[in-house]
Amino acid sequence: MIGCLLQLHVAAQSAYATVYPGNWWAGMQYNKLQLLIKGGYDGFSSETVRINYPGITLTGVHKVQNGKYLLADISITAAAKPGIPAIEFISNGKAHAVQWPLKPRRKGNGTSYAKGVTSADFIYLLMPDRFSNGDTANDRVPGMRDQSLNRDSIFLRHGGDLQGVINHLDYLQQLGVTTVWMTPVIENDMPNRTEHGYAFTNHYSIEPRLGGADAYLRLSDSLHARGMKLIQDAVYNHVGLYHFLVQDPPAPDWLHQWPKYTQTSFKDQPVFDPHGAAADKKITTDGWFTPEMPDLNQQNPYVANFLIQHAIWSVEQFGVDGWRIDTYIYNDLPFMNRCNQALIKEYPRMTMFGEAWVGSTANQAYFAANTIQTPFKSNLQGVVDFQCNFNGINAALAGDATDGVFKLYNTLSNDFLYVNPMRNVVFLDNHDMSRFYSQVKENVARQKAGIGWLLTARGIPQMYYGTEILMKGISNPDGWVRLDFPGGFPGDARSAFTGAGLSDDEKAVQQYTRTLANYRKNSPALTNGQLMQYLPDNGLYVYFRYTSTQTIMCILNATDQTRSFAFADYAERTKGFTKVKDVLNNNLFNMQPTNDIPAQTILIYELQR
Amino acid sequence: MIGCLLQLHVAAQSAYATVYPGNWWAGMQYNKLQLLIKGGYDGFSSETVRINYPGITLTGVHKVQNGKYLLADISITAAAKPGIPAIEFISNGKAHAVQWPLKPRRKGNGTSYAKGVTSADFIYLLMPDRFSNGDTANDRVPGMRDQSLNRDSIFLRHGGDLQGVINHLDYLQQLGVTTVWMTPVIENDMPNRTEHGYAFTNHYSIEPRLGGADAYLRLSDSLHARGMKLIQDAVYNHVGLYHFLVQDPPAPDWLHQWPKYTQTSFKDQPVFDPHGAAADKKITTDGWFTPEMPDLNQQNPYVANFLIQHAIWSVEQFGVDGWRIDTYIYNDLPFMNRCNQALIKEYPRMTMFGEAWVGSTANQAYFAANTIQTPFKSNLQGVVDFQCNFNGINAALAGDATDGVFKLYNTLSNDFLYVNPMRNVVFLDNHDMSRFYSQVKENVARQKAGIGWLLTARGIPQMYYGTEILMKGISNPDGWVRLDFPGGFPGDARSAFTGAGLSDDEKAVQQYTRTLANYRKNSPALTNGQLMQYLPDNGLYVYFRYTSTQTIMCILNATDQTRSFAFADYAERTKGFTKVKDVLNNNLFNMQPTNDIPAQTILIYELQR
Repeated sequence: MIGCLLQLHVAAQSAYATVYPGNWWAGMQYNKLQLLIKGGYDGFSSETVRINYPGITLTGVHKVQNGKYLLADISITAAAKPGIPAIEFISNGKAHAVQWPLKPRRKGNGTSYAKGVTSADFIYLLMPDRFSNGDTANDRVPGMRDQSLNRDSIFLRHGGDLQGVINHLDYLQQLGVTTVWMTPVIENDMPNRTEHGYAFTNHYSIEPRLGGADAYLRLSDSLHARGMKLIQDAVYNHVGLYHFLVQDPPAPDWLHQWPKYTQTSFKDQPVFDPHGAAADKKITTDGWFTPEMPDLNQQNPYVANFLIQHAIWSVEQFGVDGWRIDTYIYNDLPFMNRCNQALIKEYPRMTMFGEAWVGSTANQAYFAANTIQTPFKSNLQGVVDFQCNFNGINAALAGDATDGVFKLYNTLSNDFLYVNPMRNVVFLDNHDMSRFYSQVKENVARQKAGIGWLLTARGIPQMYYGTEILMKGISNPDGWVRLDFPGGFPGDARSAFTGAGLSDDEKAVQQYTRTLANYRKNSPALTNGQLMQYLPDNGLYVYFRYTSTQTIMCILNATDQTRSFAFADYAERTKGFTKVKDVLNNNLFNMQPTNDIPAQTILIYELQR
Repeated sequence: MIGCLLQLHVAAQSAYATVYPGNWWAGMQYNKLQLLIKGGYDGFSSETVRINYPGITLTGVHKVQNGKYLLADISITAAAKPGIPAIEFISNGKAHAVQWPLKPRRKGNGTSYAKGVTSADFIYLLMPDRFSNGDTANDRVPGMRDQSLNRDSIFLRHGGDLQGVINHLDYLQQLGVTTVWMTPVIENDMPNRTEHGYAFTNHYSIEPRLGGADAYLRLSDSLHARGMKLIQDAVYNHVGLYHFLVQDPPAPDWLHQWPKYTQTSFKDQPVFDPHGAAADKKITTDGWFTPEMPDLNQQNPYVANFLIQHAIWSVEQFGVDGWRIDTYIYNDLPFMNRCNQALIKEYPRMTMFGEAWVGSTANQAYFAANTIQTPFKSNLQGVVDFQCNFNGINAALAGDATDGVFKLYNTLSNDFLYVNPMRNVVFLDNHDMSRFYSQVKENVARQKAGIGWLLTARGIPQMYYGTEILMKGISNPDGWVRLDFPGGFPGDARSAFTGAGLSDDEKAVQQYTRTLANYRKNSPALTNGQLMQYLPDNGLYVYFRYTSTQTIMCILNATDQTRSFAFADYAERTKGFTKVKDVLNNNLFNMQPTNDIPAQTILIYELQR
């Protein structure tokens, strides 16, 4: 009625107003959207909104304190066809329209992609700024706050990007990797420390210095073309200080505000402690991560909708297979449940695991789908298994062997706390902790033993880039564990991709990883078998992975002395077998009553009849 | 029919055959008994059994491998009246009868006694051989294997007994104790190490050197006359090597037999580990405790019945209020559930807690009534809370203050794993571990702080005899933590009962205990209140116990420096209060904004409006 009398200005996205998300898809389960719309002036929120498109209904408009913003609730029916609806803004007899594409969905409508990551996968975690520079043209991007580019500094940008990853997928695939997890690829237009990616400044922009959305989509497509998978690193808890939601917030309550700067305590207990104080819980969940990373208020329904929609948008837009969730414990957990559930509803095979860097298995299990009856129940499928790290393999190989191996055994014995411990991600190191090779004091045998455990352990194995070639570094500060991958950058004298300049040890460990990871791909026992573990005996730890068709026996001698073992001592799993194949060298030999195992070694045997 | 033709020899118990249990009671819930009967010769099991008593029916007789034994199943109806039934044994035309009293029950029929032990109680754990010698006539008992009596040796008998405990109930009651738990009082006719009592040689005989059943009953009656309670230390897992069940077993399968001596691994994980090996579990539960303490086979239904009946018999016979269960983790847990359930069915108010000396809260909670969905669910009400000990107060006061206090806080935050953590028994030390005063390196302030925590903590507090007077000792070997209580033995120059010869420090800590324990008796917050704890701040730990009528604030400074705190920082519990009463000296003062707390101190304040 009004529209027909108006002069209509149809503009591309961003010219008159910016809509978040900038598009959606026809035929989504998630079809009731709340668009966050930012106009160019303070009274924008008083404009009348109109959408005239078959199958799309505007169901509500919300003002917030900041007059530049409004929120528009829309409902998209199953009948809505792909096209380019216009969202019209009408004020003083003038109308402006913003094109807001309703795209066709990816083939499969949420079922044949977003495949999830399982224990059959092998994840490689890398930092794109530090892995490989595939496009030097984007090393610096004019207009962005951080114009640093200096590979001599651990805190400055090094120029790595998504094209660098694409260039080396052969390497990763041959190494046995099935899945790439990168530290976040979303725009971090911060003045400094932009290498890690955890300070988003615009959820809907892929970091241009990494190659932007085009490169990300190409990487995703390249991975999928190889049968590989992509994990996105999601940060719900906080944003970067220079995010538009911080610099020009819709309302103060989009962020957690404090009378004076208050940091999270970085403590998990207040979240679940039945005796906890509300004040402590508030600090854990509402305190800021750092002064540069303000805390989002996920209890604000507008914020929650914004974040959930972005998660779904990311999966549909880029074909993400799995979801790693940063700083899980500091989020509002009921919000996280809703967010996880929304993803699962849209993508039934989608998997997600959270970072819960805590001190014990009970504490860790609280944040995952667990077997504990508590008032709050998490629906998170799995966690990054820090217990199997510092109360596990790292304790065994980097600490006192006897005590450490027992800790590993004990940690796994607590698996009764999880609904499915096989969904936890096991690892030796990551971008926040000292590299495993430094933890084991640059002992090559221990590095191999760690990798041997990683690829035979229950759960989803994750390797941090460079662990396969003995990269070292103590996380003090963390930049030292984020060094460049050799061969990834123009002019590198050494290359992990070609082997040029690698030491014999580096090559050996790389080959060890390659052999075992590729064996693993086709091993039913290692990818999907049950675990049986025996009580460790003075630093010697024996465990099995097994199915009805395959039995793998692993003997870990974490000590500094040769030890002996007898197959008969593990009769529940060894009975009926007469031969063993050493998985790493294919040697086949008859079982002997007693056997030696060298110090600091893991033996990985496929038992045969 | 046969009986009327026989010549009947009626004999007292034991003359012709011994019946276990030697009596029962009319009107018990548990009224289907299985009597273990041992005759005097090898063919005894072939005798015909007859019971001719109104309301008692013989429902079955079982032979076992050893011809001296038989088992008789009897059913006692509600109509059976107290009296002295005769159990007749008929062979070759001759009948012998054993008197088997059916006694009247204690007044209340299981409801007004066996009262249970709750967080309102204060348990005092003592070793009767080491607490006080009240009857020197029983110091040595002719015919028993251990004829040692030498107070100079930590491993020999010292002569303490139940009369010694009876003599000093005034002391205990004035100290604030409500409940006495003694290491076992059942006959230990072993050749050595009989001081601890954990090697039963006859379940139905109270240790004569402690005064026997008469003294035990007098102690029980004396306690109850004062409104105090009695906990019995139950040992289901093993017996002493000189138990008649070992020396002349009914059948080999009454004990766990091994091809060669096999000790339990003393490891709990194989019991619950979802990845565990059956072989490891068998060693944990079926391995012997020591060569002198063989492992009972509780999966043998005869053994199970024998043990369950003895438990009920003990409670009815001696009016036991609570049940401490030794080495809980090595028992057959389904058996333990049945045993616990049988006690609860007979004595609805009865409480029981088990020793589960394990490494983490999840491991510990597995053995108690917990909130975890696992294939096996324990019905044990509570455990001796080892986590609150070495991962709790002992870590805080005997280790690094900051880390230790945080461990204490973390341990309590895991209370979500228990159905009711208030049923756990908290303690500073016991007969198996180094005395707390030695753990804190003989630091009186830390000893007081520990006791202050003990009596304000959630759960049932338990003090080990002598902790109130700074007794010390390192558990290497354990005899050093089992020294004599001063004043308990003839000729003692010092007496904790009179104060004679005690140092000022010893008197001060004794008085500290007395003041706090007696205050606690009438404190709703300390006996039954909720706990609220705040995240520790660098070794300073603040927690509250509170009900709708009372709030107690505890501030523990575990560090070596004076610290300050502000009431306003704990507003959830301090708001509305203006004054505080120091519970230990009754000083009342107005709340000040900031306050100092000396090093190594706990402040216990009752908040007032």
